[in-house]
Amino acid sequence: MNITLSATLAANEDIARRRRAGQRVLNLAFGEAGLPVHPALRERLAEASRENGYGPVAGALGLREAAAGYWARRGLPTDPESVVCGPGSKPLLYALLLAIGGDIVLPMPSWVSYAAQAELAGVRPILVPAPPGEGGTPDPDQVVGAVLHARAQGRTVNTILLTLPDNPTGRLAAPETVTRLVRIARGLDLMIISDEIYRDLVHDENAAFLSPADIAPERTVVTSGLSKSLAIGGWRIGVARLTSAPLRDRLLAIASEIWSSPATPVQQAAAYAYTEPPELVERVTASRRLHGTVARAVADRFARAGAHLAYPQGGFYLYPDLAPLRRFATSAELASTLLDEYGVGVLPGSAFGDAPGNHRVRVATSLLYGEGEEQRLATLDAERPLDLPWVAASLGHLEEALAGFTERRRFAAWMPGSLAPVTP
Amino acid sequence: MNITLSATLAANEDIARRRRAGQRVLNLAFGEAGLPVHPALRERLAEASRENGYGPVAGALGLREAAAGYWARRGLPTDPESVVCGPGSKPLLYALLLAIGGDIVLPMPSWVSYAAQAELAGVRPILVPAPPGEGGTPDPDQVVGAVLHARAQGRTVNTILLTLPDNPTGRLAAPETVTRLVRIARGLDLMIISDEIYRDLVHDENAAFLSPADIAPERTVVTSGLSKSLAIGGWRIGVARLTSAPLRDRLLAIASEIWSSPATPVQQAAAYAYTEPPELVERVTASRRLHGTVARAVADRFARAGAHLAYPQGGFYLYPDLAPLRRFATSAELASTLLDEYGVGVLPGSAFGDAPGNHRVRVATSLLYGEGEEQRLATLDAERPLDLPWVAASLGHLEEALAGFTERRRFAAWMPGSLAPVTP
Repeated sequence: MNITLSATLAANEDIARRRRAGQRVLNLAFGEAGLPVHPALRERLAEASRENGYGPVAGALGLREAAAGYWARRGLPTDPESVVCGPGSKPLLYALLLAIGGDIVLPMPSWVSYAAQAELAGVRPILVPAPPGEGGTPDPDQVVGAVLHARAQGRTVNTILLTLPDNPTGRLAAPETVTRLVRIARGLDLMIISDEIYRDLVHDENAAFLSPADIAPERTVVTSGLSKSLAIGGWRIGVARLTSAPLRDRLLAIASEIWSSPATPVQQAAAYAYTEPPELVERVTASRRLHGTVARAVADRFARAGAHLAYPQGGFYLYPDLAPLRRFATSAELASTLLDEYGVGVLPGSAFGDAPGNHRVRVATSLLYGEGEEQRLATLDAERPLDLPWVAASLGHLEEALAGFTERRRFAAWMPGSLAPVTP
Repeated sequence: MNITLSATLAANEDIARRRRAGQRVLNLAFGEAGLPVHPALRERLAEASRENGYGPVAGALGLREAAAGYWARRGLPTDPESVVCGPGSKPLLYALLLAIGGDIVLPMPSWVSYAAQAELAGVRPILVPAPPGEGGTPDPDQVVGAVLHARAQGRTVNTILLTLPDNPTGRLAAPETVTRLVRIARGLDLMIISDEIYRDLVHDENAAFLSPADIAPERTVVTSGLSKSLAIGGWRIGVARLTSAPLRDRLLAIASEIWSSPATPVQQAAAYAYTEPPELVERVTASRRLHGTVARAVADRFARAGAHLAYPQGGFYLYPDLAPLRRFATSAELASTLLDEYGVGVLPGSAFGDAPGNHRVRVATSLLYGEGEEQRLATLDAERPLDLPWVAASLGHLEEALAGFTERRRFAAWMPGSLAPVTP
């Protein structure tokens, strides 16, 4: 087993270290939602601070009922008995790999932890590229061949995973792609895991969103959480909507031996959140708008600099191809240069399973809203967030960095307070 | 992989269901500390409710420094860099199995989750009985043979585990036993995991406590947490003291892909707890005294009924042998009879790896302190907790149940409000 610190978490810690050392670094590497926790959730957490017992492994009934209601309002009638909560959707995804067993088809690129978790669980991922212009879903045209090939080699392939909308590409799979994939999953008798943690952050509220659970509820496990939509990643709460009692029981057995249950006070706050009271719906709406505005503005900078990219449709990521700007042996080398010489932290596409020689990088845009609660709330409330000085400064840093990077000018972004390009 | 819901958590959920259905059940099955959370911890949690970021995988620096101080005050100078925090010591133990790899020697009996986690991690446990009258440590006289036998069969054996003091037996391994085991671990080149989550609940404050880390810090990983000493099991926080940077990095890599980090507000409360301020030291002292008093009182009831047992020395468990009372084919059947016919929930020794035909059961005594915060605080504060009506009633239930069980009289404990024995 050859496993290293999760690429996103490692990048975040590295950038924090550089900043403590006085370097000026734009953190476009980490997928933290970058917004304050809503006071209503803080109140619920504090109110629940008496609760110190373990409670059910599946999570408190009130939380499971609320999560069931959340899905029901999205067209997925849900029995609270089929809901399992965990300390984040990450552990739920890991335990699902163990509970389902067998190898898994992943989109390429896809979130760093899917493949790493598979390795930990002794499962071999089958990476299938996303269809051109899409992200978060393996190309249906290539799935059948990949699965039949693996099975012909004696491998057991049980699962296919989708991310709707996607990290790292920020793209939302088209309903017809999802429909085709579901048909293929049925034909190959594959379970589907649909990671919908960014679902409420699809930028266009009228965009067509099709979950595989809408058309194949019998074989689709949906995972979600509040880390992204309500920015409480550090509170560690996730939910899964299971397909059957045997799979749920297997998942619960694994959960009971790895983590017991999510933190009880957090469960109470999450139960409130999943009832979707107006104040939190409003917060999610404002967050979605801000994430979209800033993600598109960052995409503009990359596009103007000459990068190729598909504009993001959800969440706070984009996945530009920087090959037109400058060439490197690997995307890892490209990302190192951007960080060391231009003070811009991004993640190389190779961390997401992309070919090492590819020049794609994942750009997270959610840490551009400012430092500290006050700036971030002001950004969230602003009519024109891009005009706020701290947002404009970051976008300016990015523009200059991309220009310097393209022209191979050294850039003193690592000097505290300085954004001026330096002639070599 | 054949894994079922953790026996302790399953028993707790079963008893909760029976109670909702109106049955009167004495919960001696579940190891929840049964005391309220201290207001100072609730305050810290509420104060930290603004903290919603992921933070370092190893846990916040303040928490790691505080945990290092906790160990330093116990004679183990500790670098905060060698501390890794997790959402409970349970996930840390699981990740350690993956990080160290190879098979593990476990005491028999031992906590239900060690063997279950080993199965999940693809590790085969080697169960070695505890020395007569002891618990939580494999018998040094049998370890060498067991390990050499396994190695001769081509197995890789890398680790030996101790629980100090022990769950399920409530016994504390003698310093000379620990010393001998450490010598053997050195000879066999085994890592040692020392689960010391009950350390602060050794009943006799002057009892000799020897951690393997005191004499073999180079090969001993210590795990602990606040679930037992400060009764915040539901908050999910644990800490591990690692031996080397490579092992720590491996553990962090695994943690980063399974759970990311413990809930941030809980980390802040835990950081306060590990500084051991007087109010919390006092709380732990009072808890230790209460656990000891009640565990001994329960042990008295079993002893008077004719059971064989070694009196508990730490935590809130005892592990009586009920063979002198009545015979069954298995301890599971015995435990079922006690629950169904006498309203007493205990766990069969077989859940802890004991031979199925053995008549030992694990009795947890920490849920006898009453229902709700008010009763439990009163029990904690009482000079003579055994005289409180709710404690006395539970002990009375137990006495009558044991008498009825021994004499094979049916007992209407399942009737709400009734404790009267019923003639068959």
